[in-house]
Amino acid sequence: MALNRVGELAEKVGAAKTGFHQKDFLLTWNHSVDELKAVLQAAEALEELYKNNISSRVFSGGIAVSNFRDQSTRTRFSFASASALLGLALQELDEGKSQIAHGETVRETANMISFLAEAIGIRDDIFLGEGDKYMSEVSAAVDEGFRQGVLPQRPAVINLQSDHDHPTQSMADLMHLQQTFGSLENLKGKKIAMTWAYSPSYGKPLSVPQGIITLMTRFGMNVALAHPEGYDLVPETLKIAEKHARESGGSFTRTYSMEEAFKDADIVYPKSWAPFKVMEERTRLLRSGENDKLKSLEKEALANNAKFKNWECTENLMKPTKAGKALYMHCLPADITGVSCKEGEVAASVFESYRLATYREAGHKPFVIAAMILMTRFEKPGHVLKQLLDRNAPRRGV
Amino acid sequence: MALNRVGELAEKVGAAKTGFHQKDFLLTWNHSVDELKAVLQAAEALEELYKNNISSRVFSGGIAVSNFRDQSTRTRFSFASASALLGLALQELDEGKSQIAHGETVRETANMISFLAEAIGIRDDIFLGEGDKYMSEVSAAVDEGFRQGVLPQRPAVINLQSDHDHPTQSMADLMHLQQTFGSLENLKGKKIAMTWAYSPSYGKPLSVPQGIITLMTRFGMNVALAHPEGYDLVPETLKIAEKHARESGGSFTRTYSMEEAFKDADIVYPKSWAPFKVMEERTRLLRSGENDKLKSLEKEALANNAKFKNWECTENLMKPTKAGKALYMHCLPADITGVSCKEGEVAASVFESYRLATYREAGHKPFVIAAMILMTRFEKPGHVLKQLLDRNAPRRGV
Amino acid sequence: MALNRVGELAEKVGAAKTGFHQKDFLLTWNHSVDELKAVLQAAEALEELYKNNISSRVFSGGIAVSNFRDQSTRTRFSFASASALLGLALQELDEGKSQIAHGETVRETANMISFLAEAIGIRDDIFLGEGDKYMSEVSAAVDEGFRQGVLPQRPAVINLQSDHDHPTQSMADLMHLQQTFGSLENLKGKKIAMTWAYSPSYGKPLSVPQGIITLMTRFGMNVALAHPEGYDLVPETLKIAEKHARESGGSFTRTYSMEEAFKDADIVYPKSWAPFKVMEERTRLLRSGENDKLKSLEKEALANNAKFKNWECTENLMKPTKAGKALYMHCLPADITGVSCKEGEVAASVFESYRLATYREAGHKPFVIAAMILMTRFEKPGHVLKQLLDRNAPRRGV
Repeated sequence: MALNRVGELAEKVGAAKTGFHQKDFLLTWNHSVDELKAVLQAAEALEELYKNNISSRVFSGGIAVSNFRDQSTRTRFSFASASALLGLALQELDEGKSQIAHGETVRETANMISFLAEAIGIRDDIFLGEGDKYMSEVSAAVDEGFRQGVLPQRPAVINLQSDHDHPTQSMADLMHLQQTFGSLENLKGKKIAMTWAYSPSYGKPLSVPQGIITLMTRFGMNVALAHPEGYDLVPETLKIAEKHARESGGSFTRTYSMEEAFKDADIVYPKSWAPFKVMEERTRLLRSGENDKLKSLEKEALANNAKFKNWECTENLMKPTKAGKALYMHCLPADITGVSCKEGEVAASVFESYRLATYREAGHKPFVIAAMILMTRFEKPGHVLKQLLDRNAPRRGV
Repeated sequence: MALNRVGELAEKVGAAKTGFHQKDFLLTWNHSVDELKAVLQAAEALEELYKNNISSRVFSGGIAVSNFRDQSTRTRFSFASASALLGLALQELDEGKSQIAHGETVRETANMISFLAEAIGIRDDIFLGEGDKYMSEVSAAVDEGFRQGVLPQRPAVINLQSDHDHPTQSMADLMHLQQTFGSLENLKGKKIAMTWAYSPSYGKPLSVPQGIITLMTRFGMNVALAHPEGYDLVPETLKIAEKHARESGGSFTRTYSMEEAFKDADIVYPKSWAPFKVMEERTRLLRSGENDKLKSLEKEALANNAKFKNWECTENLMKPTKAGKALYMHCLPADITGVSCKEGEVAASVFESYRLATYREAGHKPFVIAAMILMTRFEKPGHVLKQLLDRNAPRRGV
Repeated sequence: MALNRVGELAEKVGAAKTGFHQKDFLLTWNHSVDELKAVLQAAEALEELYKNNISSRVFSGGIAVSNFRDQSTRTRFSFASASALLGLALQELDEGKSQIAHGETVRETANMISFLAEAIGIRDDIFLGEGDKYMSEVSAAVDEGFRQGVLPQRPAVINLQSDHDHPTQSMADLMHLQQTFGSLENLKGKKIAMTWAYSPSYGKPLSVPQGIITLMTRFGMNVALAHPEGYDLVPETLKIAEKHARESGGSFTRTYSMEEAFKDADIVYPKSWAPFKVMEERTRLLRSGENDKLKSLEKEALANNAKFKNWECTENLMKPTKAGKALYMHCLPADITGVSCKEGEVAASVFESYRLATYREAGHKPFVIAAMILMTRFEKPGHVLKQLLDRNAPRRGV
């Protein structure tokens, strides 16, 4: 039964019109809805194969490269797991954090690490505006390398979080919604509140809320963005969300009230982030090495955060959501009041009710990443999924 | 012939009454003698398969996670080798040394790293009382995760050294004894002297001597523990050793004299450790961050150690052992007088006589770890071993 | 057609008289020309298999160990890629940079990491005279371990750069020349200028120029070494180059003029290095920890370098080379004037013309390393290559 489902998914992936082959996965808004659906289908197929103890090894003798320019445990393990699932050996590129390489250095390094690479996963979200630029440079470099016969194959660059988007997170979130509400179709007309929440820390990236508002608006959802005044996201992503909402028949609204966003919401996603303007200033100061001003900025930002401690996802706030029981989402780790901090993004009782659900949400990420690699590295990924089903090699066993 | 032996071992493992499946390997004393024997049999089978160039790959697309909260080279490589042997990709979790996470953080992280994990190897022996507690928390977390459908499989937690036990070491040691003396049966009535020895360093963990006295007493051996006054082990482990000796018909004695312990010993295991009380105080000071007092403690402890420089395994001391040639054991690296330090645990000439034997002793560790993973991750590990033998896939070759 | 070529190469490798089995690859001059040719043939066969999407997995359940005692990205990824290509899991040994272990420590560690190891790749080029000595110690240790039954197999030690030689680089360079000029035969009588070039940094190892002059002289090439007065290489390597030139019918000349070396050259290899005497003094000061003197030495050395800024590979300098278009080579990264530094080894326009060629040059390295492992770990590597061709298992695909 579950395996019939894999067969169906393989056919859908095979029938989908996609232009992934020999490309990257960088920003969800650069891919068609059909392409995104195909990634979800491939991810589900890989999950089902895994659960049915069928190996998804499709590589024998290649490497996956990860480049984490910012700390990471969850995404690091997701990428490592995806690599292992497909049979790629992982090799981490550690450039040192302080270095922002460009030009010939990036071009050369991208080729030097890619002679046997099938995928390059990059997290780069410290400097606003840098992450996406860097990923594009790596992409252009391996493109040239492949075209010019330097590289025997063209590795796919996978965005593991940039300053603009966090596609492996938002796609895993979408998969979670799909499974929770039964189908992508069922998400039409559902309200999701993507809201800021208080955190005692500072400088959290904008890529999660930006990833959510730009992605969920494509599937006919009513996306309500809420944050205190001044906590703006990168303007470009707001415009994309608006455009997506118009195209899909969903909506995109903004408010300065958490209560308003939560009202009748089917889903809530309360999560802290730093104001766009603060991130811009921080980027400028990090670059110029003005450490004193950086400290002042942090102090100011934290003081400003502290004005909005009431932006906490409490039982009371959950009441006006749909039937009082909206689905709570978080990319983890959450700042849980009284658990991981004194005052945070979410009340302990709310978090505990949805704790296992947030774990399941995260559990899709390795398969989403593996699906992205599969879609970009194979001309006929649907056929490959069918072959895996037919090969029926044990994932665990002899 | 060697392969007949694998067939026999596979049958024995298959016939053994064990309750390993979907569980962990944390402390030897929480496992039955039958279970421990089955681990040794599986380890021997894996060794024989390896030597006969037969692949033991039983996983395709899973990961093994290692978490070393203390420095390690030997055990790190043993765990990496065991993972590779079985076909698991290794991913290290590096939390930073200073952090002692508990509660939700442990619970969440344990799940986040485990979506495709089959084994989690943990070394945690810096803070007395913390290591075993932490491993139990991780175990409970993945247990819940698996039960609740968060994890598609339940990774086994493998204790790679805690403050109470060092089961991969003691089981490898037992395997070494089994091979040296011909069988487990032959170990009955043999005397093993587990003794303290002088070292110019301080703060060495107690888990090796504790692992030895609690394990060897289960196999009818006469275990003589010797150390200077004050160099006590964790009291609980002494009680376990006493109980095991009573049950197995062996004995467990304690003395403050290295000579007495060595007398008529078939095996000697001279090895430095820190007094239990010192470790307790050290744990307290590390936690409170009292660095000045830590330095005083170290100074005192070293000064105290220096009173017992005569606790060195010399040729003279070896003379009264059985036929003057007891088997010398060590978990390595040993503090060798005139070689790795000015004055140490063992005289250079004694060590040199047994050097290759200690290397062989260590060589069992990767296979012991692999056996622990095999026993915990497969319902019918004996059947799996038989299948490996029948598959007869080359470990090296095409 | 390409696969016919693999068949031919496999036969050649099979027919070659080589003594690699159960040995290491440390210095090219300790291997016969036949052995070096066989490595090149095996590397080419592996490249062709790779390009034709045929898996070269020959191990199932072993590890490769890397030990980088100096920073590395390119060689690190080459070794990781070679390991993945052959099916070995990589495990890095990180000893800490300051430590120069010898004697029992090396002997023991070499065995402890090797219970399941098939290859140990070592880079050690910081202390003049130390790297090769260390590699020999590791080699002797695993040799003893294998002979004495400690290790079930004998890992090959692969020199990933020592103070005397850089064989994986020079062999990849030779493969690049072979492909550029059509055959090894065609290299006879060709002139290669191995010259010093200005760099704003200091302390670059001597192993690349030494590797080039000792290797290229074996294939009948006319090797012209050029550097400013005082920038001598290790004397022993000069003697080896002279001997090789006599034996092969090539030549080895030295000059203090870049122009002279470049005249009529078919190939130029302009690259910075530190004078042998400076490296000797630096080694002495690093050992004695005389940091003030180290700083003075660096200052002096940089000041001395600065006298030779005209040692830059410019368009003008390229004109008198053969037909004005000698092949430019570099081991990368190059110090490119106006790109990676203000004044460097090579003019931007020259580098850009050969940029992709230098990338291709580097691209052979993973396959050269894999070939070295194949030759040392298999009794009949030619037969193994033939089997890979016949097995025809997909490298990417199901």
